[in-house]
Amino acid sequence: MTEKWIVGVDLGGTTIKLAFINMNGEILHKWEIPTDNSNEGQNITRNIANTINQKLEQLKEQKSKLVGLGMGAPGPVDYNTGIIRNVVNLGWKDNFPLQESLQTLTELPVAIENDANCAALGEMWNGAGKGTSDLVCVTLGTGVGGGVIANGNIVRGISGAAGEIGHITSIPVGGAPCNCGKTGCLETIASATGIVRLAEIELSNAGAKGQLAKIHQDNGKVTAKDVFDCARVQDELATKILDEVALHLGFALANIANTLNPELIVLGGGVSRAGDILLNKVKENFSQYAFTSVRESTNLALATLGNDAGAIGAAWLIKNKLAK
Amino acid sequence: MTEKWIVGVDLGGTTIKLAFINMNGEILHKWEIPTDNSNEGQNITRNIANTINQKLEQLKEQKSKLVGLGMGAPGPVDYNTGIIRNVVNLGWKDNFPLQESLQTLTELPVAIENDANCAALGEMWNGAGKGTSDLVCVTLGTGVGGGVIANGNIVRGISGAAGEIGHITSIPVGGAPCNCGKTGCLETIASATGIVRLAEIELSNAGAKGQLAKIHQDNGKVTAKDVFDCARVQDELATKILDEVALHLGFALANIANTLNPELIVLGGGVSRAGDILLNKVKENFSQYAFTSVRESTNLALATLGNDAGAIGAAWLIKNKLAK
Repeated sequence: MTEKWIVGVDLGGTTIKLAFINMNGEILHKWEIPTDNSNEGQNITRNIANTINQKLEQLKEQKSKLVGLGMGAPGPVDYNTGIIRNVVNLGWKDNFPLQESLQTLTELPVAIENDANCAALGEMWNGAGKGTSDLVCVTLGTGVGGGVIANGNIVRGISGAAGEIGHITSIPVGGAPCNCGKTGCLETIASATGIVRLAEIELSNAGAKGQLAKIHQDNGKVTAKDVFDCARVQDELATKILDEVALHLGFALANIANTLNPELIVLGGGVSRAGDILLNKVKENFSQYAFTSVRESTNLALATLGNDAGAIGAAWLIKNKLAK
Repeated sequence: MTEKWIVGVDLGGTTIKLAFINMNGEILHKWEIPTDNSNEGQNITRNIANTINQKLEQLKEQKSKLVGLGMGAPGPVDYNTGIIRNVVNLGWKDNFPLQESLQTLTELPVAIENDANCAALGEMWNGAGKGTSDLVCVTLGTGVGGGVIANGNIVRGISGAAGEIGHITSIPVGGAPCNCGKTGCLETIASATGIVRLAEIELSNAGAKGQLAKIHQDNGKVTAKDVFDCARVQDELATKILDEVALHLGFALANIANTLNPELIVLGGGVSRAGDILLNKVKENFSQYAFTSVRESTNLALATLGNDAGAIGAAWLIKNKLAK
């Protein structure tokens, strides 16, 4: 039997990542196109359909090679209708019929899922969580996102707001304001933005010294990466910030695990590139706050798929549909 | 077609609750027998088989009326083997083959589930959560237990420790010791035992006065019910304790909901009999800490099945098996 491919699409505000993926969750070809937000976003689905046809032509493959298209989209999805809601930065008006439009233009079966959920599905299918069916994925980027998989299925919740791990409250009283309107959310601490915010507070002290303070003095700013790099060489201020991030992340993840006891919690996103220096401190705090049998059975690991997780997880949606 | 019945069994340390339940989750007949812990618990399954036969005889019904037996058991279950682990207070040695023993003796298909999960399934099938498939049930009793249902299925987690909501950490530093070995668990605050503990602290102050202090003086102790009764008439100390319980419960449930966005969170167990005075204050705190769309879509409610939830949920296990 000839191998069939799935199109995995990760729709972002500036770039659309596309990939042809086989039935084992492996990327065979991947490419990107810019996200065209003009014309109320009407060009987006048209551009996706066109670029897929062009890529097939280039590879000298027939359309029949493709069995479906899965897409991760940055916003709440109505799963009954495939309508995407309130995605202001893609130019779409409210309630854009994303699935229908893509199905018409690509002539393929289409499945849509929130992008954080796709990242979790990707890591489950062919990443850090390969083979598991109970996994929580936390994406530490500009914000903090999350995807929850239980019994092999994405947990979406009643209004699609499951996995809002970034908006778990970490600081009950006096926390920093969050974009969501609350205060003290995990995102205000453990996102790249949150880490920089914590650093700015520390660095605003008159007596701030050390390597991180030096970078701040030289560049007029610091990045989350600077914080981790300085913590790696035992800079005192940077270590203090790392400790605070790891405390709140470990605490929140332990409480999630006390509720769900997943086999694995995967840390992904740009901030997770800090690697073991972050992971190990998060694990320490996790151990302290996890129920005994949860501590013994739920593991923490770094994501392995990087930026490909979303497209791979989106493709899984089609694989899962075909299996039913 | 003649109506078929399921046997629902709720196995407790002192009493075994049994019920004949129809396919709509309605109890038709219910009764109890004492739990016989002697002889390493060997009599328990035998007594269950015997009492079912006796009840059928009494009702002039044939054994063929029964399609299966579901049981909620107070301990971790190995779901692949139906073996129950470490249930010290039932007299069983480790790894008692509960499912096999019951199947042999009753000649019925048997399904076993943790009792907190059964309570959640009961409330989903025919209680406060009727019709939903995303529900979290929190049982506020001597301890705090929990059951998580997502996409219509119990979330057990990798080692069966999902739903350990009582061991979510509420006080990160300096919390009271919990039976589980950690400190600051929700159970140390929101269980009947926890509420009494908080009351004892308040009442140990030399200046303690008011109605709750009076009861303490008269009886040498107070109960969780005393605390709620006094809070209902605006006793200052009792209100302070209620506020603390509701804060930590609302905070923990909001963070669970930020992760799972269930349609409903059900409060059950003896403490939940406090009713609206507890529920409304928990809701206030929940609203403060829940992500906007979670706050708007996840509801909180009191359990409606009382002590029957476990047996009804256990029966659901068989109904669910038959549906497959």
